[in-house]
Amino acid sequence: MNSYQLPEKPRIAVVGSGAVGCYYGGKLAAIGHDVRFLMRADLPAVREHGLTLWSSESTEIHIPAQGFATPEEIGPVDLVIIALKTTSNAALETLIPPLLHETTALVTLQNGLGNEAFLAERFGTERVLGALCFVCLNRVAPGRIEHYGHGTISIGEYLREPQPRTLAFAAMLREAGVTAKVVENLMTERWCKLVWNIPFNGLSIAAGGVTTDRIVEDSHLDALARALMRETIAIARAHGHTIPDSYVDFQMERTPPMGPYKPSSLIDYWAGRPVEVEPIWGEPLRQAHAAGVEAGRLEALYFLLKWLTAAKTDEVASPR
Amino acid sequence: MNSYQLPEKPRIAVVGSGAVGCYYGGKLAAIGHDVRFLMRADLPAVREHGLTLWSSESTEIHIPAQGFATPEEIGPVDLVIIALKTTSNAALETLIPPLLHETTALVTLQNGLGNEAFLAERFGTERVLGALCFVCLNRVAPGRIEHYGHGTISIGEYLREPQPRTLAFAAMLREAGVTAKVVENLMTERWCKLVWNIPFNGLSIAAGGVTTDRIVEDSHLDALARALMRETIAIARAHGHTIPDSYVDFQMERTPPMGPYKPSSLIDYWAGRPVEVEPIWGEPLRQAHAAGVEAGRLEALYFLLKWLTAAKTDEVASPR
Repeated sequence: MNSYQLPEKPRIAVVGSGAVGCYYGGKLAAIGHDVRFLMRADLPAVREHGLTLWSSESTEIHIPAQGFATPEEIGPVDLVIIALKTTSNAALETLIPPLLHETTALVTLQNGLGNEAFLAERFGTERVLGALCFVCLNRVAPGRIEHYGHGTISIGEYLREPQPRTLAFAAMLREAGVTAKVVENLMTERWCKLVWNIPFNGLSIAAGGVTTDRIVEDSHLDALARALMRETIAIARAHGHTIPDSYVDFQMERTPPMGPYKPSSLIDYWAGRPVEVEPIWGEPLRQAHAAGVEAGRLEALYFLLKWLTAAKTDEVASPR
Repeated sequence: MNSYQLPEKPRIAVVGSGAVGCYYGGKLAAIGHDVRFLMRADLPAVREHGLTLWSSESTEIHIPAQGFATPEEIGPVDLVIIALKTTSNAALETLIPPLLHETTALVTLQNGLGNEAFLAERFGTERVLGALCFVCLNRVAPGRIEHYGHGTISIGEYLREPQPRTLAFAAMLREAGVTAKVVENLMTERWCKLVWNIPFNGLSIAAGGVTTDRIVEDSHLDALARALMRETIAIARAHGHTIPDSYVDFQMERTPPMGPYKPSSLIDYWAGRPVEVEPIWGEPLRQAHAAGVEAGRLEALYFLLKWLTAAKTDEVASPR
């Protein structure tokens, strides 16, 4: 069914028009691509003023973006960029079908594990690509995104090697000024990112709400972070992903220069928003069980996070 | 050296005159035993008014207890009841020697693992007994202890079977109205108690400060508590202590009737007092490592508790 090709001038939809979706979609729209943003809260502002991308590295740019209220108004496109928060994935079952023609490609920019599988199961494996975004962004007002640094995106196919469309999408992003890489094995890249996210996003919440500098400065949290990294690597290896032991030191050593960094999960937790527990901890744990890998620290962290992030909006018993 | 006997009318010292020390020592003093309490904060009140034991089950009793400021003033005794908080164990190295004659017995009523070994190493294995206290007590004012229920004490010898002194000490307590049992294998009893304390004392803190009813009501915390119990049993077995699998269900099922129970560690944590992390989590973890038993959940909990209980008195980074 799928040609693994993109047309010369693809029609693009962005589903989940938060900071990440608006940033990458906005960069493509800014150089003239036909990008259609599915929006709810931001729609009136974007219809009136378009998108604004402010960057700490360059001047502010205004983009006359096309906002839509429903996928039916957008209609079938060639490429769907999915940047919805994974805690809302169930909505994709109704949001995606109106956007599909026979060879529409779906690229998920979402966090963690399981999003490609979710899309593949519902819409066909051939359609699915994924990308990892290394970027510091904030949506500060409706239609206004601020970019503080980085921006690299690593793009790969789901369970197959890069195809013409993979290279074409990366080339479009590069033309738009984004550092875009094509990766041979998308899932290995996802596991590599989890080696950092599992301990640091998790402990930032479980240790009572702390920035990453506190984790590397405390001998006990540092030891636990390293042990979680070793468990993550063991699970990845059991699924055929080669990550060397030295990757633990590499990930630990790149952390102190980040200073008092707030992982996205901590920001969500502090803001009382849903935390993406399943793709970052739940799915890796299920993959540990599936492969018979002992992952007690990951399990303890997962169970604690399920409680802590659910309790956040509940009332928690406390004498104070 | 040790006769494993107690004289007919033993001279007794209580070191660590908090709620537990004052309760059991006070019961013995109330029936006429020579009990000498080593005290600091409570000394003036006890010298003036003696000890008061209030019980929800009986009338209030007043005991003309003997308070002392130093172990030298107490002098050598036949039996030392040690009820100091384990976080102050280092003080025992100077507090115990003045209390010793050749056959002085030491009975530790302290929590967790490692206290008998600490005493044995410094003062000789032959001297050491231990006891587990199942009692709800509170020291509500200097010299005033309130007793809300239970009170059973299980007494055993350290690394040997019960001796004449074990039975004699239990008999004295029974005469004083305390339910006292003699146990064949003290260390097995300690591990059995840890099967409950490791998950419930630990998760009550790590889950953000919750009573035990919240742990058994939440499916994720319940699952983690059970997994921690299985790890604890595995470590105990590796050290030769026979605990059946069904002990997990037994310990879980006895918890809901406790209602919104606050484990002692949670009370300490909330009050900003030192938490006994080493005897409850640290020493069992070291025994897991010594026996080559995988205990990832216990390790994760230990590292988190080390941080959380240390951070309690520090300032923790938070945007609020």
